[in-house]
Amino acid sequence: MNTSSMPQQKALSEELRTLLDDPRGHRVRDDAETVRAFSRDFGPKHDDALPRAVVFAESVGDVQAVAAYAHQRRLPLIARGAGTGVSGAVNATDGCIVLSLERMNRITEIRVDDEVAVVEPGVINGDLGDAVAPYGLMYAPDPASYRQSTIGGNVATNAGGLRCAKYGVTRDSVLALDVVLADGALIRTGRDTFKGVAGYDLTSLFVGSEGTLGIVVGVTVRLRYLSTSQESISALFPTIADAAAAVLEMGRRRVQPAITEFLDAGTMEVIDASFGTRLAERGGALLLVRTDGFGAEAEAGVVRAALSDGGGQVSEPGDEFAARLIEMRRASRGDTQDDDYRVGEDVAVPRSRLVSYIHHLSEIATRHEVRLRVVAHAGDGNLHPTFWVSPDGGEEALGRLNAALDDSVRGALEAGGTITGEHGIGQFKRRWLSWEQGDRVVELQRQIKHVFDPHGILNPGKAIV
Amino acid sequence: MNTSSMPQQKALSEELRTLLDDPRGHRVRDDAETVRAFSRDFGPKHDDALPRAVVFAESVGDVQAVAAYAHQRRLPLIARGAGTGVSGAVNATDGCIVLSLERMNRITEIRVDDEVAVVEPGVINGDLGDAVAPYGLMYAPDPASYRQSTIGGNVATNAGGLRCAKYGVTRDSVLALDVVLADGALIRTGRDTFKGVAGYDLTSLFVGSEGTLGIVVGVTVRLRYLSTSQESISALFPTIADAAAAVLEMGRRRVQPAITEFLDAGTMEVIDASFGTRLAERGGALLLVRTDGFGAEAEAGVVRAALSDGGGQVSEPGDEFAARLIEMRRASRGDTQDDDYRVGEDVAVPRSRLVSYIHHLSEIATRHEVRLRVVAHAGDGNLHPTFWVSPDGGEEALGRLNAALDDSVRGALEAGGTITGEHGIGQFKRRWLSWEQGDRVVELQRQIKHVFDPHGILNPGKAIV
Repeated sequence: MNTSSMPQQKALSEELRTLLDDPRGHRVRDDAETVRAFSRDFGPKHDDALPRAVVFAESVGDVQAVAAYAHQRRLPLIARGAGTGVSGAVNATDGCIVLSLERMNRITEIRVDDEVAVVEPGVINGDLGDAVAPYGLMYAPDPASYRQSTIGGNVATNAGGLRCAKYGVTRDSVLALDVVLADGALIRTGRDTFKGVAGYDLTSLFVGSEGTLGIVVGVTVRLRYLSTSQESISALFPTIADAAAAVLEMGRRRVQPAITEFLDAGTMEVIDASFGTRLAERGGALLLVRTDGFGAEAEAGVVRAALSDGGGQVSEPGDEFAARLIEMRRASRGDTQDDDYRVGEDVAVPRSRLVSYIHHLSEIATRHEVRLRVVAHAGDGNLHPTFWVSPDGGEEALGRLNAALDDSVRGALEAGGTITGEHGIGQFKRRWLSWEQGDRVVELQRQIKHVFDPHGILNPGKAIV
Repeated sequence: MNTSSMPQQKALSEELRTLLDDPRGHRVRDDAETVRAFSRDFGPKHDDALPRAVVFAESVGDVQAVAAYAHQRRLPLIARGAGTGVSGAVNATDGCIVLSLERMNRITEIRVDDEVAVVEPGVINGDLGDAVAPYGLMYAPDPASYRQSTIGGNVATNAGGLRCAKYGVTRDSVLALDVVLADGALIRTGRDTFKGVAGYDLTSLFVGSEGTLGIVVGVTVRLRYLSTSQESISALFPTIADAAAAVLEMGRRRVQPAITEFLDAGTMEVIDASFGTRLAERGGALLLVRTDGFGAEAEAGVVRAALSDGGGQVSEPGDEFAARLIEMRRASRGDTQDDDYRVGEDVAVPRSRLVSYIHHLSEIATRHEVRLRVVAHAGDGNLHPTFWVSPDGGEEALGRLNAALDDSVRGALEAGGTITGEHGIGQFKRRWLSWEQGDRVVELQRQIKHVFDPHGILNPGKAIV
């Protein structure tokens, strides 16, 4: 085998085709359109780096062969799912190979009585949900991108979603992983049972590691019961403070909704524009709540009372519009693809700090003269403020935007929160990671990275600092 | 500072007393009674190793000082909570210092609106539950030892309990950890928010690592809502197979009890002997089920129907005896302290394999002429078979007992299960760990251990191989 460390573009693709027995280039592509399309995720990209080749893996063997090749040649290797992330975690870096796992999209097993499924990494989140629904089961993690994003990508970012406060995040549903290590070796972590404590929790270590420790090629997930009854409630409040206070009041009444979404006036305007609703003229903040399970109706009653006592205009029992609003909220993601001038943030704060933090965000927006709207998974304190400026403002406007972002992240940390609730560090949040983590934690993570990937080929420059 | 690597017993205690400014020996003890009492956990101990000193830490600073000292002198250091484990995880090894965290037992903070508590490691599990109950909150993980065991010990073993199927294990309730590393440095992992994905999940790595990666000195936990309504159901079945089938049938009806305990005839006899009940004469297996939350009553109705359809003699709604039976089951642990001739196992299998696996256990007991009884957290497939032989049988009987244990563990793995559901590897399960884990996983764990503890001082010979 040729051991030159940096083969030319064509030579590299040819080598990969030979390696994968793919003479016609079905799995190894290097045309301009493909390399551009696979050079980034849904967020902004600040450079022109392109992959030297894109490999569409169709088997575990493909992944092992490409990893071993990249390991030997010291070539950066970026595994990706559907690329729906927004933190730059799969953005191409100089000289990299991109490894797409989209074609590994089989649901390998659904074990109904065990309430477990085994999937390849390229399975779309919503497709798994559809496949298990006839059995009365669900795959709980439901990022807003659930109709596009893959389970493998969800694992890489430890994706959250709307139902997390009740059903947990991706990590809480992952029992076992098949992982290809940097050198091409295949390992299995975790177990097929709900409980198990043998050895260190390598499964959780891989979940959320953004492809920097290994490449997930198989995921064993725990399924939950699909509720046959659910109640959706909407409540419009005069002010943001009223709505945030109502979230705490629901908690004080010890009811755990499956979904608790907070939308400010700006977010209501987006929904109004997309769906022809007229929400924004009716109030300053909107809460959308869903209860489910055997207690759905009783819980909904408690929720409605709490929201009404808190000054909300609350939907009537059985109101179908409330349910539709939740679907509109889910679907409202696509309209806000980030670019350099519009950045969707993803911080989390302790729930009791929601009011003061949203107030703080408004101050930041005013101070830096940037626009702001806020949506939040209020049940777990996870906020998505979107800041934007007019592109006409050029560099000066970008400076104000970035200053606002810095302040918003600093504020979240000062409130006892985190710089990322569910989107991950990727490329863009690395600048803030050392604000959250101590030097020794940073150093331990580097050492763990070195254990798994001694040559640093796996998604370099992402996830940790 | 004296750098001799193995100071004599008295010299070592004196040095520790000087180090901790404890001239009277309140915190540093080396008397025979103390070193013997702190040389083991609740399980058997196969050697006479005693600690050279026992340090009762009263502050994070104490822990840091002792760790730094042990690190510098290359002395084995074993941190422990209440010592209620049964896998030998805190058993003394030659030349070790034992570091008890029992005195660090303050509940530092209860943040009601955030549904979070911060505790020192020595807080008793049940004491935290008592402290948060007035707020309508609970700390969900409830190992049978919850009145004796500490949160720190629960974290070290990733303890389970009765409520796991619905509320998760210890890992699922831990948000952040303060950890003293092997060299005495203090780090903080995780975050105070329910969600957060910044960096690698070091929190989960420490949870369940049995004191081999660091010493947990602070735990931030998520609290759950304490249900105001709960329903307890008991059902006696003619055979074990009937009871196990009924567990699956409850699942098929998509009801998620908080507790689902399975007891065989032998376990019923233990309860009968302890509490004067007459369960064993009425059936061959017992299921104890508890539903909670807003849907408790509706769920209990579904449960009763499923159990009755499955041939169970089911308790009436509101039957207080069913609730008392669950408390008897919890309290029945103490009578079975393990010794060389009686070993309580802790395997887990996929739920659909419960029937065949329990049948397999009976075959094993018959083949090796050992006694057997089985209790299981049936909702998550976690079984505790207890095997025993008469001490009169001597070495020959011990040989049969160990052969039965080996077969039971092998059988659990063949059924797709794990060698430990919630007790941990400790000393005793290391002989089976490589049956479950591949060579590369074993090696990765060793490398991770080396990152955190380069001199191998932290609880050597435990948790991994």
